[in-house]
Amino acid sequence: MTVRKELLYSGAFGVKNRMQLIEQIRNQMSEKRLNHVLGVERMAIRLAKENGVALEQASIAALVHDYAKERSDSEMIQIIKEQKFDQDLLVFGNPIWHGIVGAYLIEHELGITDPEIIEAVKLHTTGAKKMSQLAKVIYVADYVEEGRDFPLVEEARKIAFENLDQAVAFETKHTLAYLVNKEVKIYPKTIETYNQWVAGQ
Amino acid sequence: MTVRKELLYSGAFGVKNRMQLIEQIRNQMSEKRLNHVLGVERMAIRLAKENGVALEQASIAALVHDYAKERSDSEMIQIIKEQKFDQDLLVFGNPIWHGIVGAYLIEHELGITDPEIIEAVKLHTTGAKKMSQLAKVIYVADYVEEGRDFPLVEEARKIAFENLDQAVAFETKHTLAYLVNKEVKIYPKTIETYNQWVAGQ
Repeated sequence: MTVRKELLYSGAFGVKNRMQLIEQIRNQMSEKRLNHVLGVERMAIRLAKENGVALEQASIAALVHDYAKERSDSEMIQIIKEQKFDQDLLVFGNPIWHGIVGAYLIEHELGITDPEIIEAVKLHTTGAKKMSQLAKVIYVADYVEEGRDFPLVEEARKIAFENLDQAVAFETKHTLAYLVNKEVKIYPKTIETYNQWVAGQ
Repeated sequence: MTVRKELLYSGAFGVKNRMQLIEQIRNQMSEKRLNHVLGVERMAIRLAKENGVALEQASIAALVHDYAKERSDSEMIQIIKEQKFDQDLLVFGNPIWHGIVGAYLIEHELGITDPEIIEAVKLHTTGAKKMSQLAKVIYVADYVEEGRDFPLVEEARKIAFENLDQAVAFETKHTLAYLVNKEVKIYPKTIETYNQWVAGQ
């Protein structure tokens, strides 16, 4: 198996070997989810090139972004309680928990210490008022990777390669509209993201 | 001019005379808004009858609900600062301010002291996690009074007379969807209302 040169890690972000990292990720999830993760990595690298983000950092963050996604609710709840994360989290579920718990687990189980990667994983489903370029790349790549298929995805992909900030806004707006239409509980941080990126300040 | 017997006040809620109250309201707003206010009163009385709310209390709350609506932004901002209301309010505008400032002004300018009326005015645009029957009646009457004309208003009116809680949910969901579609900033309390009434707990 040949690996593109850009995917040979320098170790600058604390991970020495991409294939080893993929093996660690593979143990945590279904084949289907691993394919999604690899799709997010491909898209994140393309967006990183356009937006001045280190490709290695984007690759690592993408590979670990869903690290916690298939953990049981009971384990997630235990971590939220033990680590004294915001206890209001408990009324939400996996879609909100896996980013915050994932940020914790990649540090404590995989030994990832780069603060931007940890923050990008933490914010990847809710976004935030302030986001690094890396966090925006992961947030958007997760929404538009090639395996995604929903009515607005082509438009979202087009915007992603035109303007990353506008892609953050587009994703935030349409995710919120989707949640309201489905009558799904909304995490307050999502509204901070919306007020910042969609409605302006 | 004849007044329906149910609109002759007993004084139980601190206001002796409805016509005098209407004169005080008339001084604060355009003819068009006064017509809206009188429409909200008619609808609120109908909903009050269905939901065990005192008609006199519903009449007063409806008449004063938009008392602050035509105050200048600068006066609203001054009151929010001087009264040490949540300073995060300042990034919002008249649609959010007029309920909170109105609750203050009806007490300090009109001498209204009934805590349920003050609360109903305060919450009439955002709703809240916990709402009295009166607060629900004013929130819903403001949305469905006969002068309102928007695509879903007939459906909203129908629901209002079937189930007041479902009408609160319907209004909250569709108002939020409208705000997102228009890319308008959302006050965090609106999400608390949505999470309680639309998405359940």
